[in-house]
Amino acid sequence: MDSRRAESFSDGVFAVAITVLVFSLLTVADKTSTLTVAGQPGHPGLVHYWPAYLAYVVSFLTIGIMWLNHHTMFSQVTNVDRPVLVLNLLLLMGVVVIPFPTALVADHLTGKASAGAQANVAAVTYGLVMMAISIAYASVWIYLASHQEALGARRRVHRPRLSTFRFTLGNAGYVAGTLIALVSAVAALVIFGLLAVYYMIEHLPSEAVESDAAVEASGATGRS
Amino acid sequence: MDSRRAESFSDGVFAVAITVLVFSLLTVADKTSTLTVAGQPGHPGLVHYWPAYLAYVVSFLTIGIMWLNHHTMFSQVTNVDRPVLVLNLLLLMGVVVIPFPTALVADHLTGKASAGAQANVAAVTYGLVMMAISIAYASVWIYLASHQEALGARRRVHRPRLSTFRFTLGNAGYVAGTLIALVSAVAALVIFGLLAVYYMIEHLPSEAVESDAAVEASGATGRS
Amino acid sequence: MDSRRAESFSDGVFAVAITVLVFSLLTVADKTSTLTVAGQPGHPGLVHYWPAYLAYVVSFLTIGIMWLNHHTMFSQVTNVDRPVLVLNLLLLMGVVVIPFPTALVADHLTGKASAGAQANVAAVTYGLVMMAISIAYASVWIYLASHQEALGARRRVHRPRLSTFRFTLGNAGYVAGTLIALVSAVAALVIFGLLAVYYMIEHLPSEAVESDAAVEASGATGRS
Amino acid sequence: MDSRRAESFSDGVFAVAITVLVFSLLTVADKTSTLTVAGQPGHPGLVHYWPAYLAYVVSFLTIGIMWLNHHTMFSQVTNVDRPVLVLNLLLLMGVVVIPFPTALVADHLTGKASAGAQANVAAVTYGLVMMAISIAYASVWIYLASHQEALGARRRVHRPRLSTFRFTLGNAGYVAGTLIALVSAVAALVIFGLLAVYYMIEHLPSEAVESDAAVEASGATGRS
Repeated sequence: MDSRRAESFSDGVFAVAITVLVFSLLTVADKTSTLTVAGQPGHPGLVHYWPAYLAYVVSFLTIGIMWLNHHTMFSQVTNVDRPVLVLNLLLLMGVVVIPFPTALVADHLTGKASAGAQANVAAVTYGLVMMAISIAYASVWIYLASHQEALGARRRVHRPRLSTFRFTLGNAGYVAGTLIALVSAVAALVIFGLLAVYYMIEHLPSEAVESDAAVEASGATGRS
Repeated sequence: MDSRRAESFSDGVFAVAITVLVFSLLTVADKTSTLTVAGQPGHPGLVHYWPAYLAYVVSFLTIGIMWLNHHTMFSQVTNVDRPVLVLNLLLLMGVVVIPFPTALVADHLTGKASAGAQANVAAVTYGLVMMAISIAYASVWIYLASHQEALGARRRVHRPRLSTFRFTLGNAGYVAGTLIALVSAVAALVIFGLLAVYYMIEHLPSEAVESDAAVEASGATGRS
Repeated sequence: MDSRRAESFSDGVFAVAITVLVFSLLTVADKTSTLTVAGQPGHPGLVHYWPAYLAYVVSFLTIGIMWLNHHTMFSQVTNVDRPVLVLNLLLLMGVVVIPFPTALVADHLTGKASAGAQANVAAVTYGLVMMAISIAYASVWIYLASHQEALGARRRVHRPRLSTFRFTLGNAGYVAGTLIALVSAVAALVIFGLLAVYYMIEHLPSEAVESDAAVEASGATGRS
Repeated sequence: MDSRRAESFSDGVFAVAITVLVFSLLTVADKTSTLTVAGQPGHPGLVHYWPAYLAYVVSFLTIGIMWLNHHTMFSQVTNVDRPVLVLNLLLLMGVVVIPFPTALVADHLTGKASAGAQANVAAVTYGLVMMAISIAYASVWIYLASHQEALGARRRVHRPRLSTFRFTLGNAGYVAGTLIALVSAVAALVIFGLLAVYYMIEHLPSEAVESDAAVEASGATGRS
């Protein structure tokens, strides 16, 4: 199967999953609306639900960066075989789950429950989902890197050690975040957000070089 | 109409339907959140809702494998006519329904209701939806196979008997699962999951051969 | 703008809108689940919610056929200008609304309310949305047909009278259905379903001819 | 990365976000349904929820026009680099949020709450989200315009002053609307709707000229 087809379906799933994150915010709209109807004078305002907004931003950046790196990963091959597709499906199964721990964190950090064990359970669940996705990501990556010839690699994977280092560092970050979630849910959420920013920035130099090269190549061959 | 256009729309529907499955999990987030607010000390935790997670995994794999096989099916023709599009629409009407029996199974297997008739009704509904989708799938397949010339077949369908055998076996599996659902909802759900894994693995050999051939062909013609 | 780009976005909206229809069914799952938890022995089963299933089938077929005809309409031009895009946006604004009257019909026809004015209001709302969409459809069609040269028509629109007849007949059908909805909501829903089937079947002959021609053309030019 | 890929993902996000707007209407369906079940004779009808319909139309047009202009913006380059993708991600993060203030406005303007501070808070939130999106939009635009050579510009951006004028005017409009929201939520919503119509109409002349040119170019080169 043409790898672009698999990417196209994955793009669709990423696009829907990233948009489903807004349902945590729609829940906030429902809650504030219900309170209005009940006519309680001292009900909490929109600011009260800050964990929902923080969780939205962290999860949006995380899925967004995953989408970017997913493309970089699949753009290295022209074809995909059945094992790649199945591994990719497991990866997507993790990505689609993300709105669930996001909602858990948004719900359980709000109000008086924030000091309790509920918030920690929610943040640990968030971390476990991220670790599962990291493992699925690494599986797809390792399979693609070790079957380059069969899958029609567009360019040889350079600096595999750096990639391995990145994956290991990212995974270590999620493990650390999950452990910290046992103590502080908010601190864990901030770490998960910083990991997304790390993945966003860290790839910048190599990507810039590659895209410049791609521009030149497209200029030379007339293929954009 | 170009068959790629029909595939593109189908891809979109598959991508959205597979992502809608997360709403069963968002319901779990809502339930645990409401209980927290109510301040009940002995309320059930996230583990209590294991049927929702099991149902999510089974339905995700099922829709995912359906998407893979849908592509294999439509990649055999270059054009589609009105009857194919209408049959495909009926197939998609079944695929989009899947989150409904998934939510039923997730809801009705949880808690004290698990021993009751409600769980069996939910699992039977799941099985009936799967049987309807299998029939729609077979209809599209039979129409495509019997109109290969008119639809600009890319390659002759080989081993039609094996395909028929697969369809029959899959259908028989769903019938058996639905009957077992009358006795045990959990056992039925496990069978539906195994059927998805069966469809995932069983196609591996022939697909691998075809994709190798495709790589060679693309290498020869320069078309990826 | 390339007309394919506009079609691609429209496809996405159609795909999401058609999948959102399942939320009427997820509401049914929620209702039956809540009743289970409450432990009411004589609560209504899944069959009780038949209006939700009927509304789902009617709306799914309606959006599906609209997608098919949307493609036929846009495949006649190679480019689109700003007015077409704005008119198309208004059309999509109507298509995205469809899950709303679908949910209204599903909710208000169920149970004791079925005999009351609520059901009629819901069915009339459904009809009014369909009439608005028909008008938006006709607007796009008339604009495309009267700007064929500027938009790079692929083939001249033949039989414009037949098309006008179809639009008029369809609109008349929705007007009739809306009037009948004042008396019987179920009868109106059945009429809306029959109109979808009519649009599905009626186009068959001409489409078959065109697709045959397209196959020949693609065979001759090697472009699929 | 090919700019079409980034557009394709953005298209998906726009398509899903614009369709998620219907959930404000599905909430209306739920509310009227619950009231029916409760059997309250004097409950408000569908007309009572007019703020939900108004908010739907305003937000649909806003996202729709944003999609159109997003395409115009990205069609000027053939490649995108990492900074563009990250800025675009921040823009999409704002677009996906839109259903949230839409739901707030729909909920808080309905009924007796319409005269209260809740409605103003909702409308101000709507305006703040729009201002954030405007800033993200301008950031992407400025980056694209100042890196035209590196990104393989298809045509030089002409009349940058006019574009800057438009952005400034639009931003000023949203600032004015947000300030007015402090006094009247309905007036602010109408202004936000007029801004969408402004962006729809104002681009017409230049777009028409460009699309004519594009038609000629495509006729000359045979590339559509």
